[in-house]
Amino acid sequence: MAYRYAIVGMGAVGGLYGAKLQRAGFDVHFLARSDCDFVRQHGLRVRSPEGDFTLPHVHVYNDARAMPPCDVAIVTLKTTQNAILADILPRLLQPNGFVLVLQNGLGIEQDIASIVGGDRVMGGLCFLCSNKTAPGEIHHLDYGTITLGDYAPNDVPQGITDRMQRLAADFRHAGIACECAEDLLLARWQKLVWNVPFNSLSVILNARTDEMMADPRITALVADIMAEVALGAKTCDREIHPTFLAERLEHTRRMHPYRTSMKIDYDNQRPLEIEAIVGNPLRVAQARGVRLPRIATLYAQLCFLDTRNCR
Amino acid sequence: MAYRYAIVGMGAVGGLYGAKLQRAGFDVHFLARSDCDFVRQHGLRVRSPEGDFTLPHVHVYNDARAMPPCDVAIVTLKTTQNAILADILPRLLQPNGFVLVLQNGLGIEQDIASIVGGDRVMGGLCFLCSNKTAPGEIHHLDYGTITLGDYAPNDVPQGITDRMQRLAADFRHAGIACECAEDLLLARWQKLVWNVPFNSLSVILNARTDEMMADPRITALVADIMAEVALGAKTCDREIHPTFLAERLEHTRRMHPYRTSMKIDYDNQRPLEIEAIVGNPLRVAQARGVRLPRIATLYAQLCFLDTRNCR
Repeated sequence: MAYRYAIVGMGAVGGLYGAKLQRAGFDVHFLARSDCDFVRQHGLRVRSPEGDFTLPHVHVYNDARAMPPCDVAIVTLKTTQNAILADILPRLLQPNGFVLVLQNGLGIEQDIASIVGGDRVMGGLCFLCSNKTAPGEIHHLDYGTITLGDYAPNDVPQGITDRMQRLAADFRHAGIACECAEDLLLARWQKLVWNVPFNSLSVILNARTDEMMADPRITALVADIMAEVALGAKTCDREIHPTFLAERLEHTRRMHPYRTSMKIDYDNQRPLEIEAIVGNPLRVAQARGVRLPRIATLYAQLCFLDTRNCR
Repeated sequence: MAYRYAIVGMGAVGGLYGAKLQRAGFDVHFLARSDCDFVRQHGLRVRSPEGDFTLPHVHVYNDARAMPPCDVAIVTLKTTQNAILADILPRLLQPNGFVLVLQNGLGIEQDIASIVGGDRVMGGLCFLCSNKTAPGEIHHLDYGTITLGDYAPNDVPQGITDRMQRLAADFRHAGIACECAEDLLLARWQKLVWNVPFNSLSVILNARTDEMMADPRITALVADIMAEVALGAKTCDREIHPTFLAERLEHTRRMHPYRTSMKIDYDNQRPLEIEAIVGNPLRVAQARGVRLPRIATLYAQLCFLDTRNCR
């Protein structure tokens, strides 16, 4: 039997990946908020450099209780909305079902595990530029690879699991580039190497990636922040080599000018994913006796700006 | 013979103190730029909670070569303009004359000493809220105490010198509250305890002191930055006790909402005094093997914002 998918959140991430899965023939059910009625009437539309497409008929719900039990619930909300998951997730999953956490930051899988159980959570990291441009309309700009990493309490690396391979096969079948990581926690920290400096500074400095990379003092600061992220990873016994940091910086220099997801949230006066991306790594390191002073500075600055932005 | 004073810069600081000295009967000569002609015609006007007054006739010049030799040249420019001093100061001073550096930050006396000689420089720290509101018009808002500290190369504390006492007597006679510090370098670092966090964060966060003090995460960050300033002072063998830091923070909590001088410069798209206030302390500590990571973060952020603001 093929997996049945629940997509929690029909934004830039959930809308795109869910639509691709449905287009490939999978049984997909979306939980949406604001544009549920619109999509039920008009369908879901994806614009993408890989080809535009429209799904005229979509299973979309505004209440989890109306949804059929699914094998995989893909959480694509912003982490700032995760408080609603405790009520939703248990209703969505069938007994052997599990959750794929397609969100940014650290410590999210633990939260989900406390809802559905530690053996029913998988992590996923998206490398994706995508925007929701209108009700029922997703604009995919660039990239799109998902890296899967299976989760277990105590963060023991799970290697390549069967359910992960099966999920990856589905994704690839749906035209979603997919990689499998043996160690979720390492993958999470590796992604933070980029996300902590660039998401934070893009908001604080009101700047795109190219503007930051054009300033040698900022690139030096970014490198120092990246080194602090690696130091944080080390407190979790995960080694991130300096060449990895240098490579991420170089890659950013070659990227198209990019407005980070946190900056997009800020510009839209939405709450920022500060805790998942900056606060949790900081606290994890601090709990292990290691201070990350540059990241602590960014954290306080972001909290201040976020509070003022959303009031 | 009474001291004859040259005031280099007729802004919020030089305009106020120079006007008070002249009102008290001292022989005062202003070097001004933009409003030289205006003041020559209309005089200098001071609004102050201590009483408004106008000086209809002021000795004001736009060229140092036209000024008489003075006993004391009080430098009240922003440090960002100090490049012009090498040409100006030697012309202003009579052989026994000296310079009072009434500027913010660290390392300025060294620069002036390289122009006029190490025995002809005194430092001064203003605790002053004052704005230039129009040509020839100064609006004094609050405070006004000057702390004098005599300078010598190698930063050996000079104690209370004769010329300092004489200058302090003149200032007090002119209604300017004045204190004498035995150790200029300690006084400079002590002032940085406030200036580094609040000037920097006011620009980065676009915030007044009361807004920063209302956020517990920012006050905690300020406290950590203050501790880094104290660490920097320690590299210069100057001890700043934690209770001093706590007292500065508490004092700020009780202050009237205040827009820092760096924020005022930023809002007026003027160059920021980043090097004097943030860069120099950072480099002094770094040269002695001590990193100040939070201040380094502020420094890079400020440089970025300043460059964009002034272009």
